[in-house]
Amino acid sequence: MFEILKTDRRARRGRFYTVHGVIETPVFMNVGTAAAIKGGVSTRELAEIGCQVQLSNTYHLHLRPGDELIRELGGVRSFMNWPRPVLTDSGGFQVYSLAKLRKITDDGVYFSSHIDGRLIFMGPEESMKIQSNLASTIAMAFDECIGNPAPYDYVEKACERTARWLVRCRDELERLNSLPGTINKHQLLFGINQGGTYEDLRVRHMERIAELDLPGYAIGGLAVGEGLREMYRIIDIVEPHMPQNKPRYLMGVGTPADILEAVRLGIDFFDCVLPARNARHGSLFTWQGKLNLLNEKYARDPCPPDQGCGCPTCRSHSRAYLRHLIKAKEVLGMRLAVLHNLYFYNELMLKIRGAIENNYFEDFYNKYRISLIERVKD
Amino acid sequence: MFEILKTDRRARRGRFYTVHGVIETPVFMNVGTAAAIKGGVSTRELAEIGCQVQLSNTYHLHLRPGDELIRELGGVRSFMNWPRPVLTDSGGFQVYSLAKLRKITDDGVYFSSHIDGRLIFMGPEESMKIQSNLASTIAMAFDECIGNPAPYDYVEKACERTARWLVRCRDELERLNSLPGTINKHQLLFGINQGGTYEDLRVRHMERIAELDLPGYAIGGLAVGEGLREMYRIIDIVEPHMPQNKPRYLMGVGTPADILEAVRLGIDFFDCVLPARNARHGSLFTWQGKLNLLNEKYARDPCPPDQGCGCPTCRSHSRAYLRHLIKAKEVLGMRLAVLHNLYFYNELMLKIRGAIENNYFEDFYNKYRISLIERVKD
Repeated sequence: MFEILKTDRRARRGRFYTVHGVIETPVFMNVGTAAAIKGGVSTRELAEIGCQVQLSNTYHLHLRPGDELIRELGGVRSFMNWPRPVLTDSGGFQVYSLAKLRKITDDGVYFSSHIDGRLIFMGPEESMKIQSNLASTIAMAFDECIGNPAPYDYVEKACERTARWLVRCRDELERLNSLPGTINKHQLLFGINQGGTYEDLRVRHMERIAELDLPGYAIGGLAVGEGLREMYRIIDIVEPHMPQNKPRYLMGVGTPADILEAVRLGIDFFDCVLPARNARHGSLFTWQGKLNLLNEKYARDPCPPDQGCGCPTCRSHSRAYLRHLIKAKEVLGMRLAVLHNLYFYNELMLKIRGAIENNYFEDFYNKYRISLIERVKD
Repeated sequence: MFEILKTDRRARRGRFYTVHGVIETPVFMNVGTAAAIKGGVSTRELAEIGCQVQLSNTYHLHLRPGDELIRELGGVRSFMNWPRPVLTDSGGFQVYSLAKLRKITDDGVYFSSHIDGRLIFMGPEESMKIQSNLASTIAMAFDECIGNPAPYDYVEKACERTARWLVRCRDELERLNSLPGTINKHQLLFGINQGGTYEDLRVRHMERIAELDLPGYAIGGLAVGEGLREMYRIIDIVEPHMPQNKPRYLMGVGTPADILEAVRLGIDFFDCVLPARNARHGSLFTWQGKLNLLNEKYARDPCPPDQGCGCPTCRSHSRAYLRHLIKAKEVLGMRLAVLHNLYFYNELMLKIRGAIENNYFEDFYNKYRISLIERVKD
């Protein structure tokens, strides 16, 4: 199911076969939280800018429009007219970051909807049921998320609970996949490693969940306050304990530099809201570094945002026009900027794949790990 | 320059030749106030949905990003990457409707920018200079706009001033077109008829400005509070005094029903923010009538917004998905809805042209003038 075509030290060039199509890895998943990419980007455009996998959110779609409704309409891929793979987040992270009045028990989590305040319960079985209704390609395990730093005892207990929940997720998804009315009977489950910034907890938890032999594994609970060095250190420690023959997904990460570091440490899947969020504030990724469109010096600049970029924005529009649109708060400006940044991320992954295939990933890494996150020098 | 291919009673099927391409009339111009269509629709999409002419605003572009900047970047068509014709509004209406602290003299209008409050002066020469910098295909005359109803004496004085200003607009644009550095030396001037709801003033003003033998004439100062019957009555009265061999433009109008009425009275050009504004509120035009996407009954509706519609939205998405996006305030929902409504308007004009060409405009008018503005019956 997951084929490793080539390795370059720890970096892996892989191919993940799913019922909804093949995913070439390393891959960046484009985030469409509520079954829509931010900034008004359409699924037709997603395909055009090289997106392989779209990520949607269990928590958001459960609250609105409701997973039962999406199920009636054929699942989230049919609902949003996206024929390629979709990964759904389990809702665990959103319960931790968005919802109010949380109460966590061994059964699951009680929380209030951030939309209308109504009380909702979600546990491993509920999350699997929702994701089965959404009929995504890959379902994520329901885990207990915690911020960093957190006390050792607390993290240890959360890890144990997350491990127990994972077994329940697996059992429930197996059951759901076997039901006659299930839309995607081949839905895959990825487990999630937790353990905060404690190396022993991380490793112990990873070893424990690896025993379940799931189709893929994620590292969760990073990029939540611990700093970059800590994050890289944890990935470095955990990775050797992740199954070699399964895809590894670093959740919610990150900058182009973070992605380069993590690929170098053996990670295959990524997702992040950063390219869309930066775009909305006029910050574009280019192969010369980060470009702040709001800078006065671009006001009369007839060049495309990134010379040589093949995205729909750079093929058609100038820095001056984009700057005008963003300053005038025209939605088109946001959309064109988001399109560019998502294209850039997908292109980054394409180049990373090429670099691993052709044994120059280390050079690629050294060339870009600093320059891509620095400001463009003119 | 304007060729009438066919008439059906007063309705005209025409062809307007410009330096930026041919405009098939009757035509609806898609409104991109600040050099961008609302809702994040791109110029590439504009072409795709059959838009012939894009309308931009002198007032808005003068304030931001500035017409001198746009001139440096090759004019508004080059700035926004729109190769087809552009009509620029003169700014007169926006000074009347948006700006504060207006003081009108024979020279022009003093007003405060609605963006930063700075004091600005605009008269006929200034408006022509800005529009020449924008290098649109068609420049509109700078006129004095008034709301309806207004006292007779006041309207009469405004008409006289508008007529005097028109001569200054013509002279100034001729001068600007002859300058070596001018981007579009073939920029065309349309005069604007005013006169409120007073038939004698309307006719007298129209006769006076017709003498200037300009490339086109507009009816302004309607749809500003006078009601539909009044509006149709004024068009009916003025139209016989408009030159037969010049395009006629009814500014800022209107619903599909208004357009049908006005085409029937001999109008050729239209523009209106209505399709985009309605779309943003979930109201879609369809050939079965108006459809309110926020209606609960569409929550699980897998049909496209309008069966048989060929727009990018209807080809790819369901009512249920659009409703979800608009309720979740996802920008994509607004964009898909605006795309549909603009496509509908362009399609309406295409069908109107076909109906006039083939002598069934009267039947077409009778079939649709009521049904298009009524709610969809399911």
